Amino acid sequence: MEFSSKLLQNAVDEVSFLPGIGKRTALRLVLHLLNQDQEVTTDLAKALIDVKTKIKRCKNCSNISDQDICEICSNPKRDQSIICVVEDIRDVMAIENTEQYRGVYHILNGKINPIEGIGPNDLNISPLVEKVQQGKVNELIFALSSTMEGDTTNFYIYKQIEENKIKTSTIARGISVGDELEFADEVTLGRSITNRIPFENSLKN
Amino acid sequence: MEFSSKLLQNAVDEVSFLPGIGKRTALRLVLHLLNQDQEVTTDLAKALIDVKTKIKRCKNCSNISDQDICEICSNPKRDQSIICVVEDIRDVMAIENTEQYRGVYHILNGKINPIEGIGPNDLNISPLVEKVQQGKVNELIFALSSTMEGDTTNFYIYKQIEENKIKTSTIARGISVGDELEFADEVTLGRSITNRIPFENSLKN
Repeated sequence: MEFSSKLLQNAVDEVSFLPGIGKRTALRLVLHLLNQDQEVTTDLAKALIDVKTKIKRCKNCSNISDQDICEICSNPKRDQSIICVVEDIRDVMAIENTEQYRGVYHILNGKINPIEGIGPNDLNISPLVEKVQQGKVNELIFALSSTMEGDTTNFYIYKQIEENKIKTSTIARGISVGDELEFADEVTLGRSITNRIPFENSLKN
Repeated sequence: MEFSSKLLQNAVDEVSFLPGIGKRTALRLVLHLLNQDQEVTTDLAKALIDVKTKIKRCKNCSNISDQDICEICSNPKRDQSIICVVEDIRDVMAIENTEQYRGVYHILNGKINPIEGIGPNDLNISPLVEKVQQGKVNELIFALSSTMEGDTTNFYIYKQIEENKIKTSTIARGISVGDELEFADEVTLGRSITNRIPFENSLKN
């Protein structure tokens, strides 16, 4: 695509860096902004900068939060000894929607993925292992999506905490293998939390 | 969707104001930015602000440009007496790609659309009528998409300049009725420029 303006070209290039946005869609979005009032663009730009610079990660679970400790971790009604291990905050939102879970979370911010160069040290794994070693945890629930990368990550963490003899479980495989957790319906996802099975059992399949 | 952070909520809301972007896609885009380096977000925000505040409209045709007069209007090889009337710059880009056209353009920045409250005075129509009245124009080519709104806009302009007795044409209806111009393939669109027909003829169908 050839553009009559370097500014336009630059804006379209930047927008099309976003995942799932091609050049044509990017051009449509930029032209939409050009046809709107100035403040639509400035509000959008400010919101993106703010969320990137001012947002905090909960010091306990790495959930996105405006405070140092997120609402879930600071809620006295939640059971701090049960930790659900998830990939990102969309999974937290999906599980919270089921209203089936009263423990807390630990967000890894990704899965082990050698092809994309993501190793265990790139993820939020060692604080989780420390929590378990400090004896504060009764049960870990692995709730990563059941892909190759999810299974690898589960297994890596399991090996790190195996000798601590705590209860480990995975959410029931009611969710189809290969599907992303966030797109599961609430009933299936809620049931998969309720019917979680010991991690050792999941290795036998 | 409930968010654990007002900053996140705000960013997702702003992104989902964009056409064709839902809340779920907006969340995915914002989380993508959160996982990237700071400069990805600042570059994106800066490009959007720059394109909105610094970009110029060509004083002759209203094309998007970094100069006061766009590259097409300032090109001595282009025939300034033939003007192709289009809706927006995506249509200019589409026609330029065919390499079939050596005249210049006039961009209306929309079509007459009473349902959305867009009347003739909201569009870049009167400078076009002035150009015709000044006797500088030999031919107008109407290249709006052949929808109800496009036809209405064509007819409105035609009525304004009818008494000036210049040649008027529409691009050949090789493009399916109701289709958007920008999605036509290059061969069809190029042929529709070459085989344009007198505007009066198009009224007979």
